[in-house]
Amino acid sequence: MAEPYPTPIIDLGFARLDVQRATRTGDAEVVFGAGKTPAQVVGALRALHAAHPDRAVLATRLSAEAMEACRAELPGVRLDELGRLAVLGSPGPARGRVAVVAAGTADLPVVREVAATVEVCGSEPDVVLDVGVAGLHRLLAERDRIDAADAVVAVAGMEAALPSVLAGLVGVPLIAVPTSVGYGWHMEGLTAWLAVLNSCAAGVLSVNVDNGFGAGVAAARIARRAAPREP
Amino acid sequence: MAEPYPTPIIDLGFARLDVQRATRTGDAEVVFGAGKTPAQVVGALRALHAAHPDRAVLATRLSAEAMEACRAELPGVRLDELGRLAVLGSPGPARGRVAVVAAGTADLPVVREVAATVEVCGSEPDVVLDVGVAGLHRLLAERDRIDAADAVVAVAGMEAALPSVLAGLVGVPLIAVPTSVGYGWHMEGLTAWLAVLNSCAAGVLSVNVDNGFGAGVAAARIARRAAPREP
Amino acid sequence: MAEPYPTPIIDLGFARLDVQRATRTGDAEVVFGAGKTPAQVVGALRALHAAHPDRAVLATRLSAEAMEACRAELPGVRLDELGRLAVLGSPGPARGRVAVVAAGTADLPVVREVAATVEVCGSEPDVVLDVGVAGLHRLLAERDRIDAADAVVAVAGMEAALPSVLAGLVGVPLIAVPTSVGYGWHMEGLTAWLAVLNSCAAGVLSVNVDNGFGAGVAAARIARRAAPREP
Amino acid sequence: MAEPYPTPIIDLGFARLDVQRATRTGDAEVVFGAGKTPAQVVGALRALHAAHPDRAVLATRLSAEAMEACRAELPGVRLDELGRLAVLGSPGPARGRVAVVAAGTADLPVVREVAATVEVCGSEPDVVLDVGVAGLHRLLAERDRIDAADAVVAVAGMEAALPSVLAGLVGVPLIAVPTSVGYGWHMEGLTAWLAVLNSCAAGVLSVNVDNGFGAGVAAARIARRAAPREP
Amino acid sequence: MAEPYPTPIIDLGFARLDVQRATRTGDAEVVFGAGKTPAQVVGALRALHAAHPDRAVLATRLSAEAMEACRAELPGVRLDELGRLAVLGSPGPARGRVAVVAAGTADLPVVREVAATVEVCGSEPDVVLDVGVAGLHRLLAERDRIDAADAVVAVAGMEAALPSVLAGLVGVPLIAVPTSVGYGWHMEGLTAWLAVLNSCAAGVLSVNVDNGFGAGVAAARIARRAAPREP
Amino acid sequence: MAEPYPTPIIDLGFARLDVQRATRTGDAEVVFGAGKTPAQVVGALRALHAAHPDRAVLATRLSAEAMEACRAELPGVRLDELGRLAVLGSPGPARGRVAVVAAGTADLPVVREVAATVEVCGSEPDVVLDVGVAGLHRLLAERDRIDAADAVVAVAGMEAALPSVLAGLVGVPLIAVPTSVGYGWHMEGLTAWLAVLNSCAAGVLSVNVDNGFGAGVAAARIARRAAPREP
Amino acid sequence: MAEPYPTPIIDLGFARLDVQRATRTGDAEVVFGAGKTPAQVVGALRALHAAHPDRAVLATRLSAEAMEACRAELPGVRLDELGRLAVLGSPGPARGRVAVVAAGTADLPVVREVAATVEVCGSEPDVVLDVGVAGLHRLLAERDRIDAADAVVAVAGMEAALPSVLAGLVGVPLIAVPTSVGYGWHMEGLTAWLAVLNSCAAGVLSVNVDNGFGAGVAAARIARRAAPREP
Amino acid sequence: MAEPYPTPIIDLGFARLDVQRATRTGDAEVVFGAGKTPAQVVGALRALHAAHPDRAVLATRLSAEAMEACRAELPGVRLDELGRLAVLGSPGPARGRVAVVAAGTADLPVVREVAATVEVCGSEPDVVLDVGVAGLHRLLAERDRIDAADAVVAVAGMEAALPSVLAGLVGVPLIAVPTSVGYGWHMEGLTAWLAVLNSCAAGVLSVNVDNGFGAGVAAARIARRAAPREP
Repeated sequence: MAEPYPTPIIDLGFARLDVQRATRTGDAEVVFGAGKTPAQVVGALRALHAAHPDRAVLATRLSAEAMEACRAELPGVRLDELGRLAVLGSPGPARGRVAVVAAGTADLPVVREVAATVEVCGSEPDVVLDVGVAGLHRLLAERDRIDAADAVVAVAGMEAALPSVLAGLVGVPLIAVPTSVGYGWHMEGLTAWLAVLNSCAAGVLSVNVDNGFGAGVAAARIARRAAPREP
Repeated sequence: MAEPYPTPIIDLGFARLDVQRATRTGDAEVVFGAGKTPAQVVGALRALHAAHPDRAVLATRLSAEAMEACRAELPGVRLDELGRLAVLGSPGPARGRVAVVAAGTADLPVVREVAATVEVCGSEPDVVLDVGVAGLHRLLAERDRIDAADAVVAVAGMEAALPSVLAGLVGVPLIAVPTSVGYGWHMEGLTAWLAVLNSCAAGVLSVNVDNGFGAGVAAARIARRAAPREP
Repeated sequence: MAEPYPTPIIDLGFARLDVQRATRTGDAEVVFGAGKTPAQVVGALRALHAAHPDRAVLATRLSAEAMEACRAELPGVRLDELGRLAVLGSPGPARGRVAVVAAGTADLPVVREVAATVEVCGSEPDVVLDVGVAGLHRLLAERDRIDAADAVVAVAGMEAALPSVLAGLVGVPLIAVPTSVGYGWHMEGLTAWLAVLNSCAAGVLSVNVDNGFGAGVAAARIARRAAPREP
Repeated sequence: MAEPYPTPIIDLGFARLDVQRATRTGDAEVVFGAGKTPAQVVGALRALHAAHPDRAVLATRLSAEAMEACRAELPGVRLDELGRLAVLGSPGPARGRVAVVAAGTADLPVVREVAATVEVCGSEPDVVLDVGVAGLHRLLAERDRIDAADAVVAVAGMEAALPSVLAGLVGVPLIAVPTSVGYGWHMEGLTAWLAVLNSCAAGVLSVNVDNGFGAGVAAARIARRAAPREP
Repeated sequence: MAEPYPTPIIDLGFARLDVQRATRTGDAEVVFGAGKTPAQVVGALRALHAAHPDRAVLATRLSAEAMEACRAELPGVRLDELGRLAVLGSPGPARGRVAVVAAGTADLPVVREVAATVEVCGSEPDVVLDVGVAGLHRLLAERDRIDAADAVVAVAGMEAALPSVLAGLVGVPLIAVPTSVGYGWHMEGLTAWLAVLNSCAAGVLSVNVDNGFGAGVAAARIARRAAPREP
Repeated sequence: MAEPYPTPIIDLGFARLDVQRATRTGDAEVVFGAGKTPAQVVGALRALHAAHPDRAVLATRLSAEAMEACRAELPGVRLDELGRLAVLGSPGPARGRVAVVAAGTADLPVVREVAATVEVCGSEPDVVLDVGVAGLHRLLAERDRIDAADAVVAVAGMEAALPSVLAGLVGVPLIAVPTSVGYGWHMEGLTAWLAVLNSCAAGVLSVNVDNGFGAGVAAARIARRAAPREP
Repeated sequence: MAEPYPTPIIDLGFARLDVQRATRTGDAEVVFGAGKTPAQVVGALRALHAAHPDRAVLATRLSAEAMEACRAELPGVRLDELGRLAVLGSPGPARGRVAVVAAGTADLPVVREVAATVEVCGSEPDVVLDVGVAGLHRLLAERDRIDAADAVVAVAGMEAALPSVLAGLVGVPLIAVPTSVGYGWHMEGLTAWLAVLNSCAAGVLSVNVDNGFGAGVAAARIARRAAPREP
Repeated sequence: MAEPYPTPIIDLGFARLDVQRATRTGDAEVVFGAGKTPAQVVGALRALHAAHPDRAVLATRLSAEAMEACRAELPGVRLDELGRLAVLGSPGPARGRVAVVAAGTADLPVVREVAATVEVCGSEPDVVLDVGVAGLHRLLAERDRIDAADAVVAVAGMEAALPSVLAGLVGVPLIAVPTSVGYGWHMEGLTAWLAVLNSCAAGVLSVNVDNGFGAGVAAARIARRAAPREP
């Protein structure tokens, strides 16, 4: 049966098909998987990959069904179960390095989203785990490695003390990703969000709760500019 | 002119005159100065001191006018301008030691309220300042001193990372006092409050925002029990 | 299929393997079961028990499946269905006593979490139920028993009046655990949380909503120090 | 100079001139003083008194200037400095009795507003002070007196435990007035408000924060019906 | 297998077994069904009915399974599917009448909870539906009937304008029950709650969102006193 | 078995049967499907259609089951799967045109609810998609088409910048519908709601989050009046 | 002394000098007086009046000093002390009529801002006061007058029941302006805001709290289109 | 008179004297003027300038009195009345350029704080004003200039649509500063804060409300790295 009034033509079911944007900004094309069917995800990745054969394209927030569909229908796709991600195509040589730092395993899904985004956006992710503020010696041991990066992304839930401590140790541009990880009443990550935006250390930047993708895009922009392409 | 209906007898204008309580709990008597006139503060301190001549009594949150009245009318009173406090009488020998730890000068008024309360409640305050998480080496240098205390009170505003870092360094019972200190949108201290109650370190206890008095009473109770009176 | 980028080595899937910490602080090792698979819970308990054969280790917030796996695979484990807990190993002789006080049966799961944590952290829990403020005579009948403890944990939901009433009756260090128990609009426990942090009685300490584990760790620290090990 | 467009006729500057309402409901006429000039308050009281010569009329939330103007210009007015109230005329014989109960002196201004409203609405207020939950024996001593009233108004700030304790002690219709009294972060009385609306005791009714007037009107309605006019 | 530590004796799994309370206050005994198993509900109703054979006892917030169990195992029980209620025993002759007023069908479950509670607490409920403010003529047509009641309970969701309009029409003690009924962003009933507590009409009392039971208990207390038992 | 007390006659299970209203206002009759059974939806649509044979009637927020029941039992019904809508009857000739504008596909269900409501309320919806602020050229290309409408409804989630940009481009009465669409912490649409109510452009009107129906009713009222019926 | 870095040229100190906008939309030019000096207000009004000699220009939210400066320096200005407004120039013949409806005197400043904005935007304001829901007969008496308008603006504080009642009485496009007027805890107008956006009546539109200007602009746009200019 | 207990040595009254930090990170030294006396501000600036004679030092959030004291006592100081800033010393040659973009004059104080911070941190601020989204042509005219910068800071109040629009136009790293500017209920800038953190454009970074200093530090870090020091 027909629908009650005419439906405008829609862009294949994925949000933003803007082929000039990637060229202009150097960011990768991304499919937000939340709320999409497996078929929509596969179709969107295939179309974006065809439009950008020399770059990598990314899909985030995938359901188990969507990941299974990607595995079955997209030869060469790389999947990350924990991060709920799929990558199609090769990102090419990386410019700059982004340290992705977190305290523990609970924040790992967001860490993976940051790292994959950094990679498809043309920079190199360097993941540093197990450096929570409750065990300072482990963080101090990684200080020089982090300070040598071109940008830092600090992923932190609960009270989110890590970005403040980090910002006192290194002088690199620093983006905090508050996460909704916690064991009590934390208002779905509001605690971590408020914490990183009230850091006692100057220059801590923030994205929304759990928004690893947004942090990865921004960090890669910074890192690519800090390390221009080799001649 | 008479008031429109009979007024019940009131307890001299101060909140709780319960002479048995101090004996029973070991806590000191306190006058909350907020909203009281200078005459009410002076009268309350004088009456409590007369009821407890062998102990110290405390007044908190005093206006400048109330402090001036105490100075003029209460011989032997000790005043703290920064902490807005007055103490009358001697607390006697202290049992146990409470480390009162803070990052910087902005939290100093609350630090003073904690320390004075600890003292009048019969324990020894040991104030450790300038140990914010943005300069970890200074905090690490004081670790042994803090770990040797019978209780720790960590006063912290902004994102309140200090209690979490401290709780990873020492095994002493730890009370966090979130403060309303901050330079941006922090919802009058809610940020710090949420942070300390979501600490990634186990066993961090909390009182209300800026409630140095409450933290001091509780810390002294813990410290006195940890260090029983000498025979 | 390989994951898209190298994964750092992870600490066996449980949050904090810090074998020195237990020795230093006297706290027990704990596995937070929320979000973990049955296999992860079993593996973590087994590894921690091997590292600390002379102490008890605890797992909290377990799913029914995780409890079943513990029963099947961990000989000697003790389980608490209501509290969703598992304990492996013996805590050794207890130092000090912690009164765990609550009004009714709805708060019982949190009461169990407090009591088990106190026990594995080396102190003795003494559970006192059915003492809600709506039936004061029952609370008054238990006053001396509570006052003789080394620390008190008051578990309270809804309007959380119990900690305030208790703090007026006894002089023992008192920790309130607000719970998310309620029958109307209470903002997931915010009501109880705000109540305990605004208690009219001095010295009431608090942890996060439903955080029985945190309260148990802190209470055991206080009780152990108040009652040093026998010679 | 004229205003830019015609102004409709306004009712003398006070909110509700509805001469039938008092007759119909038995409530008194009231002038809300907040935001009114001294002249407006005096004019409104005088007009209402002229319309109801055989009843009392009330003005609440008066500024010091408005109280001074009432004293100077309204012969026979009765003023309450603490409650910021003025009463003109006689309320006539009272029907029923309303117990107005509170913990301490900080809530006294609201207590006065309740009591005066009860009186002008034709019932007898019976103020019971110093019965906070931190000193239960004093509350228990007044139990029979409160239980014999026709309605109870419990005024309580901070964590507002008093209404719950009271509701477990007496079977009288009970109205709680949460107040904005507190010494920490209590969100301008939201804490007390949430507490009374989440009371573990059945049948606790509530009005808005500090709304002594509303509670007094409702309590008097209940009390007058419970004690019909003598023949 | 035994539980890890001794469990105190519990009151049969239901919240408050206080056989004196009903006698003292005239309120009925109630079983809150939320979170209880069918067996617990049946057991609690049976025990309370045995303790009070000459009164009615009530169970609220029942699951479909619990209602089925009541039907199968409790001869003579009366069930209300829409209100999720069960009543066992007879309430005896009613004293006073309570008008229970609502706009539409969406609020009907709460209306039923109010009415059943009023009935088991010994007063007569008089339900008046379809009187929303969007159709004023229907409300005006019921004015005299409502005004003749001994108490009014106004059940209202969404913007909850009904209590304010009612309070301007009748002089009866009025209790508003805000409900969580709505079609947009209303913060789970906060909108209605704030509305009834900010009514422009004096004397509107409130209970928590959806708390029909609390409103019913309070209304019956008021109505019973307004209409003393016949000689 | 009978229910415990008499049930008043109810209006067939749907909210508002007010046959004069449609005639008076020109709005259509609507069945809110949320919380209704398939049989209730079908019955309500059939009854309203019988009462208004010459107009269209609408049902919104339908479950999949309710849509299936409409398809099976209501000949001639038009269904919209994405918008979860059903329309029965013909709306007659349209007066005026309402531009319904949105950025992308995620807001499409709300767009459909707006459009269908406009249509059944007697105006013509003109849907303009893919005009998000991140691709300004597409919005600018549609400026004249939007400016020529009689009213504009802008549907926008996330940060809801579209209404502000639109209001700077066209002078038509503009209604914003904030939606709960977003990928991070946005408080269920509060972000979009606050944004549209704080627009820097004058005259932006708003309805509740996701309330496409409300916006459609209001827009059609405006458009019908701007384009009076032909003679 | 020079400022530390060059300052870009600024548009004379007032927010938006966009001479085409008024011609395009028919809205008037407005100076928001909040935060501006008297000299800035006078200068802005004079410049806008010079640019639009055949229209009226408006200034809102004026301080007493700014109003005095307007009176002294702008011949022909019309001032409204209560609404804190100034109007310069003549609005020309009005098209359409906007009913501006409110309950009482407390909302009068916002009513004035609505009415003046409507007038300078080219429509006729028709102010209807004293029609609060607590006195329904007065509102019903004005029903026909309101229903005959081309748009309605309902100004309402406290629980804001008026817009819902009005929307059930008339079929005119209706804009609600929630106000921050209230006597208790209403969160600076959030109560009224939530209420109008959750109206049980379909099609109620809203602006921000106290935003009489925004409502006036939108209402005039609607009214002008409903009543096209005479030939 | 002496204070009641010994006071630890304090760092001259200003928050952070960490002479190595500037060398390590390249950030400038800053004095937060909020809450400091004029003498403290002057003393802090003088001491920091002496410690860093070859760099510029900054003071922010100065009172009028503090600015006057700087003018009188610090030769060579540069003051910005609107931004409430003081700069002492020369920042040396700039590396990189930061576009500081805002809609209008109300955000100018924050714009000034961003620009001055960028300058003292060693980069070049390029201020672009009058480019609000309500006048898109002005923003589009500046697109190439902004796109050529090394970093962008977008300052935006009210609904904060500017950062989203900008992020769709340029590929430069972008930091949004939400401001507390607004004319209605916007929760002290929460509206703008939520908006920028929910931007539909990827990669928008944020600092706290009105935190121009934090944005400036971060932007300069990014810009300096993008444009390495000349050989």
